[in-house]
Amino acid sequence: MKLHSYFRSSAAYRVRIALQLKGLSFDYVPVNLLRGEQRAADYVSHLGDGLVPALETGDGHWLTQSMAIIEYLDETHPAPALLPATPLGRAQVRALAQMVACEIHPLNNLRVLKYLVHELKVSEDAKLAWYRHWAGSGLAAVERQLALLADERRAAGLAESLYCWGDTPGLADCCLVPQVYNAQRFEMSLDTLPRIQAIVERCRALPAFALAHPDACPDAP
Amino acid sequence: MKLHSYFRSSAAYRVRIALQLKGLSFDYVPVNLLRGEQRAADYVSHLGDGLVPALETGDGHWLTQSMAIIEYLDETHPAPALLPATPLGRAQVRALAQMVACEIHPLNNLRVLKYLVHELKVSEDAKLAWYRHWAGSGLAAVERQLALLADERRAAGLAESLYCWGDTPGLADCCLVPQVYNAQRFEMSLDTLPRIQAIVERCRALPAFALAHPDACPDAP
Repeated sequence: MKLHSYFRSSAAYRVRIALQLKGLSFDYVPVNLLRGEQRAADYVSHLGDGLVPALETGDGHWLTQSMAIIEYLDETHPAPALLPATPLGRAQVRALAQMVACEIHPLNNLRVLKYLVHELKVSEDAKLAWYRHWAGSGLAAVERQLALLADERRAAGLAESLYCWGDTPGLADCCLVPQVYNAQRFEMSLDTLPRIQAIVERCRALPAFALAHPDACPDAP
Repeated sequence: MKLHSYFRSSAAYRVRIALQLKGLSFDYVPVNLLRGEQRAADYVSHLGDGLVPALETGDGHWLTQSMAIIEYLDETHPAPALLPATPLGRAQVRALAQMVACEIHPLNNLRVLKYLVHELKVSEDAKLAWYRHWAGSGLAAVERQLALLADERRAAGLAESLYCWGDTPGLADCCLVPQVYNAQRFEMSLDTLPRIQAIVERCRALPAFALAHPDACPDAP
């Protein structure tokens, strides 16, 4: 397998975590977003969206969209599982992942911030306020959702989850950790987000998350 | 089951289509986004994100995030299937759905357009240009991805898909049709998107899509 990745891409970081959690070996192919390499003719000939990450499978298929790639990895390499065994559990984990991947990240990625600055001519301060508004409100929503899930477990007589859902890291953690890394680059505090803070700390202590970190990528400066 | 929905919400529209494709009966609970009913205390006590749609299951669980809800419906009511049988097929369908739900819709929903106008004080023209930029580039990416999938089928000796993937509508169509409805409200043309146009026309001819249409909702004006 080959992973087309950029060290700082939050979406690529998600897939790197999943690959490491499953202990899968892969070739790392750097795609420099700042130099626009994702728009190169050869790259876009394989991918309608021309985004990172892309997973090139062993049999030559190019897969796009990080959550779709992670579910593919989970289906083709089931252990350790990144999704719970029940439909309800899977819906809860997918919802947490999508609260990051559909509500926060799309508003704050590089091309959107560029549009704000270059097309809408917003100031640096207004750009930062935009970032913090969506990341702040989005992470607060995730924090509330984690509290609701904790209530549900308590009512069922279960101990509190160690990760986003249950006692092993999964799809939602693959999305949450890169989003928090990103928010911290923008100097956001996690003080009001104790559950997220605890989960992210627990994840960061695992080798798989360390190996997937942007600083550990071959294309990190 | 109860579906908390707003007639014009693109994300709620996706779930309505899935419910109708599966022939599931449900109570429609209107949540008026313009009046801010999604922020009512009772509503947010069940949902960390306080968004529509939410699916209240028969056993009292509240599910959020449209793609997660649709996969839950597909797992709990498998026929007709909204995802292909193979991991590769599922990855391709999920990627198409996410190209809409992660790359287009998040940039163009009501709260984002409101932020542009109220916080960033952009003009009506600049707001429309923003909408058309993300919807236009995002739908063009979907169109290219559909062409790549068609190439792949041709190479395998298969006939071209009638819908986004294969000969029955699925998760990707549930996301594409509401996005196109939305784009047409903003007077965007589909002239350069022949595959999308053909798929959407085929979908619109099906009773399930007609029943799920915003105009068919109890809260439509």
